[in-house]
Amino acid sequence: MQLGIGDDCALLRPRAGEELAVTTDLSIEGRHFRLDWHPPESVGHRTLARGLSDLAAMGARPVAAFLSLGLPRGLTVAEQTSAAWVTRFLDGLLALAALHRVPLAGGDLAESPIAIADIVLTGAVPQGKALLRSGARPGDRVYVTGTLGGAAAELAALEASPGDFAGATAAGKLAPHLYPQPRVAQGLWLRKRGLASAAMDLSDGLSTDLAHLCEESGVVAEILAAALPLGPGATLHRALHGGEDYELLFTAPAAARVPRRIEGLPVTAVGRIRARKTGTRLITLRTEKGLVPLESQGWEHFSGAE
Amino acid sequence: MQLGIGDDCALLRPRAGEELAVTTDLSIEGRHFRLDWHPPESVGHRTLARGLSDLAAMGARPVAAFLSLGLPRGLTVAEQTSAAWVTRFLDGLLALAALHRVPLAGGDLAESPIAIADIVLTGAVPQGKALLRSGARPGDRVYVTGTLGGAAAELAALEASPGDFAGATAAGKLAPHLYPQPRVAQGLWLRKRGLASAAMDLSDGLSTDLAHLCEESGVVAEILAAALPLGPGATLHRALHGGEDYELLFTAPAAARVPRRIEGLPVTAVGRIRARKTGTRLITLRTEKGLVPLESQGWEHFSGAE
Repeated sequence: MQLGIGDDCALLRPRAGEELAVTTDLSIEGRHFRLDWHPPESVGHRTLARGLSDLAAMGARPVAAFLSLGLPRGLTVAEQTSAAWVTRFLDGLLALAALHRVPLAGGDLAESPIAIADIVLTGAVPQGKALLRSGARPGDRVYVTGTLGGAAAELAALEASPGDFAGATAAGKLAPHLYPQPRVAQGLWLRKRGLASAAMDLSDGLSTDLAHLCEESGVVAEILAAALPLGPGATLHRALHGGEDYELLFTAPAAARVPRRIEGLPVTAVGRIRARKTGTRLITLRTEKGLVPLESQGWEHFSGAE
Repeated sequence: MQLGIGDDCALLRPRAGEELAVTTDLSIEGRHFRLDWHPPESVGHRTLARGLSDLAAMGARPVAAFLSLGLPRGLTVAEQTSAAWVTRFLDGLLALAALHRVPLAGGDLAESPIAIADIVLTGAVPQGKALLRSGARPGDRVYVTGTLGGAAAELAALEASPGDFAGATAAGKLAPHLYPQPRVAQGLWLRKRGLASAAMDLSDGLSTDLAHLCEESGVVAEILAAALPLGPGATLHRALHGGEDYELLFTAPAAARVPRRIEGLPVTAVGRIRARKTGTRLITLRTEKGLVPLESQGWEHFSGAE
């Protein structure tokens, strides 16, 4: 897939045998980000990261991004001592785009009473080879990349003292909420090796996303609490239910040789897939006290904080 | 191009020799539509029409649409005597989608303080065959489909008495503003016949859009005022500067046999392309009083009405 010359539309030229993955993600001021909490560079980074993470989940190679941006006029004007909000937003977005070599190929711009950003990502994947949510089978192991709950922990800290984060940059300290790193390289690796039976990205939290994967695959899962790799500041609760970690969740047959690191990132086995029987829970959690049902606690961004 | 099975992303499977056209258009409450002026079905119809019109301009066959929708909670709730705003919005969008056989293949939904809709359209076109803005050459004739200025006239009437339009439906009377008809069939016809040297859609008004086409082609244009096909209620001013007609603007060599109707729709020659020389205006208008320069008066939706 290559980017060609377009005008009313952008033109993408597929390579033989490839199909095109398309995903859209809407970010709304007050809902997905706050002007008083998030540096503009973080909002731009996060906007693109959400789309790239969807491509990563399917094992797709990013081809081109499209951005629709609605902004209040004030955010487009430079201030005396700093660039306009939109300039810093684009700096953040384009820095991540450069890292993943994905061009911004088009989009739309309009004045809006609140800031909104809709990102479209297109990616290429060999025909019939995309990683899907529906392939998990009884006996498979459940894996996650990286660590869980760190984004939720950072968000809680951000809420407590927003000023501390004004200087946080993608290049600086680990910032899983402000600057999540989409696992594109890991998704590509998994797709090329053919190891994963199912995959998706962790955007809404393990308890919610794993339930989706189980439903799509017609199976249930058992998670081992002690095995969960906790991110900085994460509790078990945040690792299970915190959203926006943007790690990959995948399953692989028990016989598959899944390495401890993929493209430099730790990978952890956290549970196993079992057959679905009448009355069984979608997910159970094995703790020191035995097996307990794990309810999905859907991540609703700032719904509780508004 | 076919729609395949996806989950984190939708998957589009190209046919051999095809490339993919992608376009995004953002519609914002108060800017592109008003809840007190536009029936919800019209907002849905117009959201999709904008994207389909971009595909038409390139001669692309629609493949799939993606919708990102941000809505206040009140718009998602049914009232006692009528369906929820979002239900009626989708009715309008899906009716036009059915007419053009384009599936709604994905998208995103979020709560938002104002209503916003970002539409992504994907289309297929044989490699290297897309209609571009850059091919107009001196001596070419300038054509438009349908009539001009009708959408601006209807918008003015809508502003004067919004209540009159509550019952207007896509299936009912001619409503060029509320229910514009994207010229997909005409764009496909032009691309297949290879008649057009350049093409684009008229979204911002002839004076603005033709200037873009001239700039992209490195030429200038002369328009014959008396030749412009006026829509219902249209004045010359509205035909030149009114936006959102969503007709096609195209050029063809003088020797090309352009028919008077394409796929049932009238086509009118409205001017000619000339060589660009130092100091010449991009567009001149020939009237009874002679040649006058035509300035682009960019269409800014409701910027004047807000």
